[in-house]
Amino acid sequence: MPFHQYFNGDIIDINSAVFKTNDLGLLRGYGLFDYFRTYNGVPFRWDDYWQRFENSARLLKLELPVSKGDTEKALADLHALSGEQEVAFRFVLTGGYAPDSVHVVQPNFLIRTEPLPQDNPAGRLKGIKVLPYEYVRDLPEVKTTNYVHMVLMADELKRQQAADLLFHKDGEVSELTRSNVFIFKGDKLVTSDRNILNGITRRVVMELAKPHFDVEVRPVSYKEVITADEAFTTSTTKWVMPVVQIGDVPVGNGLAGKRTLFLQELFEKLVADWGK
Amino acid sequence: MPFHQYFNGDIIDINSAVFKTNDLGLLRGYGLFDYFRTYNGVPFRWDDYWQRFENSARLLKLELPVSKGDTEKALADLHALSGEQEVAFRFVLTGGYAPDSVHVVQPNFLIRTEPLPQDNPAGRLKGIKVLPYEYVRDLPEVKTTNYVHMVLMADELKRQQAADLLFHKDGEVSELTRSNVFIFKGDKLVTSDRNILNGITRRVVMELAKPHFDVEVRPVSYKEVITADEAFTTSTTKWVMPVVQIGDVPVGNGLAGKRTLFLQELFEKLVADWGK
Repeated sequence: MPFHQYFNGDIIDINSAVFKTNDLGLLRGYGLFDYFRTYNGVPFRWDDYWQRFENSARLLKLELPVSKGDTEKALADLHALSGEQEVAFRFVLTGGYAPDSVHVVQPNFLIRTEPLPQDNPAGRLKGIKVLPYEYVRDLPEVKTTNYVHMVLMADELKRQQAADLLFHKDGEVSELTRSNVFIFKGDKLVTSDRNILNGITRRVVMELAKPHFDVEVRPVSYKEVITADEAFTTSTTKWVMPVVQIGDVPVGNGLAGKRTLFLQELFEKLVADWGK
Repeated sequence: MPFHQYFNGDIIDINSAVFKTNDLGLLRGYGLFDYFRTYNGVPFRWDDYWQRFENSARLLKLELPVSKGDTEKALADLHALSGEQEVAFRFVLTGGYAPDSVHVVQPNFLIRTEPLPQDNPAGRLKGIKVLPYEYVRDLPEVKTTNYVHMVLMADELKRQQAADLLFHKDGEVSELTRSNVFIFKGDKLVTSDRNILNGITRRVVMELAKPHFDVEVRPVSYKEVITADEAFTTSTTKWVMPVVQIGDVPVGNGLAGKRTLFLQELFEKLVADWGK
């Protein structure tokens, strides 16, 4: 069944052209988004994602044109129309149509229904290679639509058989292009609290880790990451993904770490039971 | 007569919704633009603007889907349809529709016809106030669509009766949100060559200034700007606009400088005769 999208109150086919060309998201990159999915047909950690979306909107001074309840109704309708058990939802909020191409008048709010990202169980056990990249996201606590470096480097990543970029600046690591970073030093689990997007999966993994490990949340140096025993990255689509190589340097022994795989199992169990 | 727009080969009404929602410009901020206008019905410095547009596209690794000749044809058609003597054109090139929301497949190319920006002859003689803002544009040599800080600060500018932001970082001034910066120290005219967009108006003004002043193109410190005798900013819409106040600090005596107004006159004469 074709997927649908919600745009400013209407539900329409996902392939419809809906944006006029004086939208500030398009002309000025003035937009934010969020992305989440269902497990067992139930949106995962919906309250957290909604709260983050509200927070991004507030930081970009965009008034949400919908309530949480309206949005839940739209999600249920989109989900039903998809005919699928599991779907992903992408929210996009832009500055809206601007006669002067500068000032926000009325934001545009879009919800896209998307097929689930391809799961990659092999990659999840084997881990990924990332390339170090000197950059720090602008307004990192806002999930803006600015992913220029990710798109720009997509071909280079492929060429180097790497899955993502590891952002670092002034000796400090922040995040990957769309996911958070954790490292293990022995039984100590460390993740950054600076220049990052507050990932929901990051939060869940910290909750899962606390009974088992000593969790430190603080700035993380690049040197710590490349000398870590284990490293992994977390996101809605990556879950708990081992990072086994940074540029030419293997992390630890170059294989997915046992503590990382333990957390991965806890996460997989959590989502397998979600909503039940 | 209603303005029109060109989108991937078709000319349609300016108010048509044309963008599908998986465009990388919208979802990932992966887009660039350019903007120019006619004088006496003739596009100003078209070769320069086209060259800059090509350069931006190359730096973002986007293949132009049109030739210069095709584009000239589209501009002529759009101009004729407008029924106006003078128009402004906005090019927008995005990463196009991306099934995976990451990889470029085929860029989308839009040309919007827009009414001329409001001329402000009073402002041009009186000058503007700008607010210092610690920031440097990402990929400054590319005219990307990323103007998040400009839109974010629009209300604050209004509140402080300022016209624009002056970007500076680590003691060095780069540019305003959409225009270049020049200063006069006596008869010496200085403009930055680092972390800037290479403005076409900037280039024209340097050409006009050379017979009359000693022109230096080099990094410019924030301190130099606030202690300058005169300052001004240049852009397609601002021409040669005096900057008379930076935050609470007047530039020089706080009035539009005589050398600045001299260059402004030269520029006005040039465009008054353009195409004749």
